[in-house]
Amino acid sequence: MIQASAGSELARDSSRARIYNFSAGPAVLPVPVMRQAQEELLDYDGSGLSILETVHRGKTFADIVARTEARLRELLAVPESHAILFLQGGASLQFAMLTLNLSRPGEPLAYADTGHWSARAIAAARELRSVNVAASARENGYTEAPAQEAWQPFADAAYVHITPNETIDGLEFDYLPETAGRPLVADLSSTILSRPLDVSRYGVLYAGAQKNLGPTGLTLVIIRRELAASAGVEVPAILRYRTHIEAGSLYNTPPTFNWYLIGLYLDWVADEGGLEEMARRAEARSTIVYDAIDRSEGFYVNPVAPGSRSRTNIPFGIEDGELEKRFLKEADGAGLKQLEGHRSKGGMRASLYNAMPLAGAETLADFMHDFALRHG
Amino acid sequence: MIQASAGSELARDSSRARIYNFSAGPAVLPVPVMRQAQEELLDYDGSGLSILETVHRGKTFADIVARTEARLRELLAVPESHAILFLQGGASLQFAMLTLNLSRPGEPLAYADTGHWSARAIAAARELRSVNVAASARENGYTEAPAQEAWQPFADAAYVHITPNETIDGLEFDYLPETAGRPLVADLSSTILSRPLDVSRYGVLYAGAQKNLGPTGLTLVIIRRELAASAGVEVPAILRYRTHIEAGSLYNTPPTFNWYLIGLYLDWVADEGGLEEMARRAEARSTIVYDAIDRSEGFYVNPVAPGSRSRTNIPFGIEDGELEKRFLKEADGAGLKQLEGHRSKGGMRASLYNAMPLAGAETLADFMHDFALRHG
Repeated sequence: MIQASAGSELARDSSRARIYNFSAGPAVLPVPVMRQAQEELLDYDGSGLSILETVHRGKTFADIVARTEARLRELLAVPESHAILFLQGGASLQFAMLTLNLSRPGEPLAYADTGHWSARAIAAARELRSVNVAASARENGYTEAPAQEAWQPFADAAYVHITPNETIDGLEFDYLPETAGRPLVADLSSTILSRPLDVSRYGVLYAGAQKNLGPTGLTLVIIRRELAASAGVEVPAILRYRTHIEAGSLYNTPPTFNWYLIGLYLDWVADEGGLEEMARRAEARSTIVYDAIDRSEGFYVNPVAPGSRSRTNIPFGIEDGELEKRFLKEADGAGLKQLEGHRSKGGMRASLYNAMPLAGAETLADFMHDFALRHG
Repeated sequence: MIQASAGSELARDSSRARIYNFSAGPAVLPVPVMRQAQEELLDYDGSGLSILETVHRGKTFADIVARTEARLRELLAVPESHAILFLQGGASLQFAMLTLNLSRPGEPLAYADTGHWSARAIAAARELRSVNVAASARENGYTEAPAQEAWQPFADAAYVHITPNETIDGLEFDYLPETAGRPLVADLSSTILSRPLDVSRYGVLYAGAQKNLGPTGLTLVIIRRELAASAGVEVPAILRYRTHIEAGSLYNTPPTFNWYLIGLYLDWVADEGGLEEMARRAEARSTIVYDAIDRSEGFYVNPVAPGSRSRTNIPFGIEDGELEKRFLKEADGAGLKQLEGHRSKGGMRASLYNAMPLAGAETLADFMHDFALRHG
């Protein structure tokens, strides 16, 4: 048993040099985070028990909860005006929760439509309210984020919703829209913790953990406390932000192991230099891959306008669909994993989250160059 | 690194002989399940990637999903009339979802009130519908489950809800109520997989995973497919059972690692002999602890009537509250962990789930006997 464990760890040590995980999510995690989780898996902090089997109401888990919140408040400079929640159900449950909590039946909402995930958010909101698409990239084929001047009026909207980075379309806003006093709500699933934010500008920001925060199973919600006060009685308690603020996200049993891993992940981000450093790395990684596309003389295509290109999710294609299949197969063999594009788009996609080493982007760029030489 | 890992595993090997985890949930997991998860944590199935960072739409995870469902269908003999779902949000989200999906506004519901968790379910349902408490243990102080003859009429109810085992009160039904054709809905969080069930008798059964299925983060829902067809358009897609049946529980990103652990847990149950064997062990473990209470000449008290005593959750107290504190402290020192009663009740509680070895119950009984001799 011990030998097998040591063996697989050694295998990982040597193979990690050549394996890079470009999954859009659940995504690459820092190796030191996984190693610590592995070491402690059967005995957390000398308790003789696994964190997997530790009660969520005791001191051990309370310490994890407190440390996680403190670390996140520090990293993102979250002001006291905003509560930090960890909730189940993914960003998809947030699509419904934010509509139910932040607006009353009959109140209109304003959304920007910039790709797949904003369309999902809009569809969910339209099940409950009237949605005004106040800004859209539909006309340009989702290749350029709408400019501030292009926004339609939304003075009557209960809130304004944007998806600052579209994970599938590879499109991101390079500015935060002015909302004329309406609460700004943002799905930051793919860019949270990849750069500093001014949290005070958001009414609500939310992010599934499985890209830049940890494993899947929890969703971070940062909400201006006063916005949680107004949910109507028609909203079930489990779906009210107020419930979870009052309970410190422990209204019911949370995914404890997932929460613990988020804590380790946040420690890793801090140890590596915080959000300024994460932003520097995101810029460096994405520049390497975009350069590989742009210097391929049209062999690789990414249709997004330069000012709207995502620093975390880079979709790209090759005109010849058969070559795309070959690219994916050869890349996988070369240790460049999970590069498949989203099933709605096909092609390839390189997701470059915090835990992706710079060497991963470099290895991918080298492979792309070599592949184009051989097949161009 | 390797030495540390091996060291902690060795520590666990030797300490496991004296450490028993009586937590009500998140609860004890089988050591072989945790060991396998530990071994594979950085390299799942030779992929070079952790299951924590593996995309939920690929073949690797699809295999886990398929194997988990097949195993569960086999263990619980789930008929094809019923769909198996793994959902986020815990049993608490199910309290709202089942009301929203199985009834229309204005339709009354029938619930049995047998303790803390049925009261939570009733409170959640009352936010949305009119609830008829058709059977209650309130009059007897939640010490005896209501008899079949005691049920009030509920012919107009959209469904009939019971909590077959009350995790906090330690009370369980020893029969399944007749529901005169109304769908029977049951919260089986604390007894799922602890004995064979006739799934065909349930319209919906649901269970948070963190007691008898795996770690916290997923909730098992087994639902008669035809019941999912009727949810109204006023129910958001993410809260419709139909949505999750159509998507095979992959409507949005699930907690993949938690799902994988449930798969390992189910394999363990099958390897150990299946549900008949789990039932035999539950009977043996609980008999040992109840005997320790009953033979203590009143030193330990469990108020539940013999025919309603839970085989999984045994609350007990000592008249002298100071002695209870001492009991918990000494028990913890003796490796009998997480025996604290629920914060609403105080005292002690021994939860004896599938993964609790018989030796755990025996060690607890010996400790109880010795403690009573010293302090009685």
